[in-house]
Amino acid sequence: MNEPLTLDPDRLFPADPQTREVAQELYATVKDLPIISPHGHVSPDLLLDNAAFQDATDLFLRYDHYVFRMLNAAGIDLERIGVGKVPTTDPRGAWRIFCENWHLLDGTASGYWLTHEFVTLFGLDVMPSAETADEIYDRIAARLAEPDFRPRELFNSFPIAFMATTDDPLDSLDSHAKLAELTVSGAIKGRVAPTFRPDAYVNARKPEFVEKVTALTASVGAAPDDFRGYLEAMRASRARFVERGAVSADFGVSHPRSLDLNDEEMSALYRACVGGDPSPEEADAFESGMLTRFAGMSIDDGLVMTVHPGVFRNHSTAAFDRFGPDTGHDIPVATEFTRALRPLLEKYGNDKRLHLVLFTLDETVYSREIAPLAGFYPAVYIGAPWWFIDAPDSILRFHAATSEVAGFSRLSGFIDDTRAFLSIPARHDMNRRLDAAFLARYVREGRLSLSSARHWIHRLTDEQPREIFRLG
Amino acid sequence: MNEPLTLDPDRLFPADPQTREVAQELYATVKDLPIISPHGHVSPDLLLDNAAFQDATDLFLRYDHYVFRMLNAAGIDLERIGVGKVPTTDPRGAWRIFCENWHLLDGTASGYWLTHEFVTLFGLDVMPSAETADEIYDRIAARLAEPDFRPRELFNSFPIAFMATTDDPLDSLDSHAKLAELTVSGAIKGRVAPTFRPDAYVNARKPEFVEKVTALTASVGAAPDDFRGYLEAMRASRARFVERGAVSADFGVSHPRSLDLNDEEMSALYRACVGGDPSPEEADAFESGMLTRFAGMSIDDGLVMTVHPGVFRNHSTAAFDRFGPDTGHDIPVATEFTRALRPLLEKYGNDKRLHLVLFTLDETVYSREIAPLAGFYPAVYIGAPWWFIDAPDSILRFHAATSEVAGFSRLSGFIDDTRAFLSIPARHDMNRRLDAAFLARYVREGRLSLSSARHWIHRLTDEQPREIFRLG
Amino acid sequence: MNEPLTLDPDRLFPADPQTREVAQELYATVKDLPIISPHGHVSPDLLLDNAAFQDATDLFLRYDHYVFRMLNAAGIDLERIGVGKVPTTDPRGAWRIFCENWHLLDGTASGYWLTHEFVTLFGLDVMPSAETADEIYDRIAARLAEPDFRPRELFNSFPIAFMATTDDPLDSLDSHAKLAELTVSGAIKGRVAPTFRPDAYVNARKPEFVEKVTALTASVGAAPDDFRGYLEAMRASRARFVERGAVSADFGVSHPRSLDLNDEEMSALYRACVGGDPSPEEADAFESGMLTRFAGMSIDDGLVMTVHPGVFRNHSTAAFDRFGPDTGHDIPVATEFTRALRPLLEKYGNDKRLHLVLFTLDETVYSREIAPLAGFYPAVYIGAPWWFIDAPDSILRFHAATSEVAGFSRLSGFIDDTRAFLSIPARHDMNRRLDAAFLARYVREGRLSLSSARHWIHRLTDEQPREIFRLG
Repeated sequence: MNEPLTLDPDRLFPADPQTREVAQELYATVKDLPIISPHGHVSPDLLLDNAAFQDATDLFLRYDHYVFRMLNAAGIDLERIGVGKVPTTDPRGAWRIFCENWHLLDGTASGYWLTHEFVTLFGLDVMPSAETADEIYDRIAARLAEPDFRPRELFNSFPIAFMATTDDPLDSLDSHAKLAELTVSGAIKGRVAPTFRPDAYVNARKPEFVEKVTALTASVGAAPDDFRGYLEAMRASRARFVERGAVSADFGVSHPRSLDLNDEEMSALYRACVGGDPSPEEADAFESGMLTRFAGMSIDDGLVMTVHPGVFRNHSTAAFDRFGPDTGHDIPVATEFTRALRPLLEKYGNDKRLHLVLFTLDETVYSREIAPLAGFYPAVYIGAPWWFIDAPDSILRFHAATSEVAGFSRLSGFIDDTRAFLSIPARHDMNRRLDAAFLARYVREGRLSLSSARHWIHRLTDEQPREIFRLG
Repeated sequence: MNEPLTLDPDRLFPADPQTREVAQELYATVKDLPIISPHGHVSPDLLLDNAAFQDATDLFLRYDHYVFRMLNAAGIDLERIGVGKVPTTDPRGAWRIFCENWHLLDGTASGYWLTHEFVTLFGLDVMPSAETADEIYDRIAARLAEPDFRPRELFNSFPIAFMATTDDPLDSLDSHAKLAELTVSGAIKGRVAPTFRPDAYVNARKPEFVEKVTALTASVGAAPDDFRGYLEAMRASRARFVERGAVSADFGVSHPRSLDLNDEEMSALYRACVGGDPSPEEADAFESGMLTRFAGMSIDDGLVMTVHPGVFRNHSTAAFDRFGPDTGHDIPVATEFTRALRPLLEKYGNDKRLHLVLFTLDETVYSREIAPLAGFYPAVYIGAPWWFIDAPDSILRFHAATSEVAGFSRLSGFIDDTRAFLSIPARHDMNRRLDAAFLARYVREGRLSLSSARHWIHRLTDEQPREIFRLG
Repeated sequence: MNEPLTLDPDRLFPADPQTREVAQELYATVKDLPIISPHGHVSPDLLLDNAAFQDATDLFLRYDHYVFRMLNAAGIDLERIGVGKVPTTDPRGAWRIFCENWHLLDGTASGYWLTHEFVTLFGLDVMPSAETADEIYDRIAARLAEPDFRPRELFNSFPIAFMATTDDPLDSLDSHAKLAELTVSGAIKGRVAPTFRPDAYVNARKPEFVEKVTALTASVGAAPDDFRGYLEAMRASRARFVERGAVSADFGVSHPRSLDLNDEEMSALYRACVGGDPSPEEADAFESGMLTRFAGMSIDDGLVMTVHPGVFRNHSTAAFDRFGPDTGHDIPVATEFTRALRPLLEKYGNDKRLHLVLFTLDETVYSREIAPLAGFYPAVYIGAPWWFIDAPDSILRFHAATSEVAGFSRLSGFIDDTRAFLSIPARHDMNRRLDAAFLARYVREGRLSLSSARHWIHRLTDEQPREIFRLG
């Protein structure tokens, strides 16, 4: 017998009936608000090309490292499910393997999101399994072929008010220029904006660094080892991003260390890095010095600064060599903010023009470091739980750890941070339910009035991300 | 329409009706017990002068960095709300700004305490807002003018059985001598005691260190660089504190590192420190060596040793320069106890005469380090959650992290640690409710009998702080 | 009046009635399954000798450092309760002291387990206290004298399907050979297996290291400083363990650091260690290099590799000198896995033949490091909460921290890790209730179907430990 696949209308709400009622009421006030997604990894070309999605395997498995890493852990060769440099020639077979292993995702955020997507977008009502794999594959294929299932139509129907992509400083941003025209024409009923992400041009430990900065400095006609030219090129690129509608600059640093170094010191470090063989200390110091420089640029050009630190990228060299980056083996490490960010905050922390949003994969810093920093510095905002901890229990822990220290006004709102376009509504809906669940508990415990809870859930879903990310 | 300001009689209790009933029953047994406050920052002169409080702004904003830091984060210049080296000339205007921004405190412990104070002490029934600011200001002013609203009358009505202040080793303690007379005469119906806090005389990284130890050693006629004289002066000062009723010595060290060094080693470090330019290692080693020395002095004179480590003080130099210390930008850091305290515990940890109460702002150490240490060493007690984590969810996490490892007998009881005199009943009431909520859950889960829960809530509120702080 | 001692049939289940009902249903499906105990510290001779237990003091106090450390903290001299190198001459007096102090265990896991044991194994119905101590002592004595209360009869009645002990590489394993015969004959209705634990032969910081490795290398006729001989002896010992039914090798390293060093490098480090005065760096590097070597051996011989890191052993030298190791003062420290294990995982992490089960006392690593590692590497499994955190709230935190990141398939199942034979059913029952409570919450929150929850609680209790520990 096939198991049904269902979505409980009260999912994620607290068990206590009175608290649940408050959560239902709060959720109802925000559930239909347009989605604001100020940080993510959807390709602009997805919307520009507006092609039909290929098949279930390409759509749900090939690129979703949250999902396929669990199959890898179960000992399934990723090439069999279509992951890797070339797509599988047997997508239906790959889908079968996935459905047979559906239970691996039980309890995970990915399992929760996929269930939401399968039910709401595809009308599926049976749980994936060996028996149901083909039926599901076919039903998905039929839906993908329908004209209202193109990326733009989905974008408009979710609906998304604002979506940021993540882009290379040397990207032409031509796709974004064309998307802007589609927004003006009404073909896309929301805004899509690029995000400036210069990691590859700052991290001199990476082999591609020299090639990257050579191209960057060349863009302003400077020599590769000219630090002033490097800064000028960064500023020029950011200006292009701003012109194309960017609202933020994102930094995937290994550690949120900052240093306040003068031009001479920075020039010397830069030359050592461009020389191709910097010491680890020189590479670190250069990255730390640049973090502070980027904060200064944000004050000048208004780009919100988001920091995503504390991940050991590509932990498995074998998997990296076979499948490339973002294939499920980036592993978090303990991360320190209080001392690390001090030089930057000494210089710019009291400047309201800077909006610095801090993300973490190390939950211990929420009550200890991030909330205390955001509870004092006008420039610091608390980013939503990210990646592995972008999940129901983790999000409730996050709220419990930050709200007592810094209230709700310092939260920059939910960030889906996803490559998986179809998962965007599922993720935002999850978060709205959890905000409702958390605030309902405070109401039930006599810590917050119902009207204040209504105020905050609306602000967290709508006004606060708009204000903090300067969406205008 | 103005929103009402209310206090739910069942606030902070668990939602489940059966568990809530147990919590109500447990809370009822302790809610009226006199307050024991063995660590705090109220000035003895407040009670000695017994002057009427000035106005709402001076009372609630000017000195409460838990509150005004949130306004600073919101971009409000602190001078506009009366913070700083000179008071504001427009306290009513400052109060208006605060009331307009009342929602910033939603969800925070400070918002919870202020609500308690506004309702119970001032009979307020409207929520602070732009519209209600003036009315509230005036109602507070009227109440402040009433004769039963003087500090001593409040002290007696809360009622407080014991309250410790925090004092400098060279303080004359004259205020405390006079307060003791007032206790004897019955004007104050509880005991007020000083606390020995020698940080400024131990931390050689601080610029004032040399001046401080010069004055200290002079108090016993010793040369500034005479380590024996320094120790003698410390002991003499502690003896004066004991004579004036002190029960504890408090250490706000940056890290709970201890070292067991002999006199020769300590003398050399001390001389390096007094020389005015110690290396960071020398300053650290001196502070670590003194921590162990102070434990030895506690064994001799009976002062309970409380340690409050792990804060990066005055994180923002700009704010420090404008507003001084304790102005909202002390930020916690990760803190290690197991290795750090070992030298001290090797020497004194098995000596029951030492009572060493460990506080932390790093919650990760509760189950990992502090509870295991307190579950073995007779000298070690578990301090209550402190500062940023002195809040409902944090306190429940604290209990969940420590009780399974070390039961309830090693808890030294609630500490309000506050400058905000009027918040003392609100804070203790909060903690009694949370103890009730936590113990009720264990009763409901079949982990504790109701009579044991009754036993423990009484001990945690009354006997245990009396015994551990040796209140006699 | 004596207080009753009771066991709530719904203990540890969630308070919400609907969630509780689901928990009851899930628990009912696993509560009677035979116990699988793949890691513990019961002596094989207990079952081999099958002698009656001596008395309550010897049984419950003398060896249970979870319990007697709490009495030590309360200032009770451990010799008075029978701890130490010689047993007490007054076991009844010792028992009285324990019963007088019963409340010290309120809220702890040990108190919970002892209550379970007293009620289910001894039929006790009064709470231990000064008044009831003698009665309880006598009732326990009477029960201990009954023929069905011998170790083997208890083993069969619990019932235990598989139990691992922990053994020295040079142990003859004769006891295990005889136990295997008893299993074949049906006198023991389950399997008892040794576990290879070579810590003393790897940690060159320990004074006994040279003596240990001298004996080890001699077992294969090699010179003490011959690294190839050392490796050969390790392999030979593991082969003997495998032959005697061992399923795992356990590593109580201070830190989970690994290094991938070649034979020449390892030989040099080994010689430095055998030389008797290695630098701390050499001792560390040797231990780290051996961790990777042992992973390689596991791939060859199939022994599951379990790692128990992050404890500062014998924190109190005074207690160690009086009472020896395992006497309540091993204190956890923060532990890092992501970087530490990388060399080992680079070499073997993608090899399904390796089963590497990671344990921790530092809860912060569950969501940050261990679950992400186990969610990718086929070789990595998540060990159950251990020691201080093997307790109800901690176990629920563990599930909440890991399941969202890595689902349920990477959990190796409950481990009792105990010396206290009688506590084994209490511990496993506790864990089954908590698995039921956790899964029931997910069902109630619409995150898991009831049938999936049934699937997982059975797998976690039975199939998964059998598969991961290769019980055949």
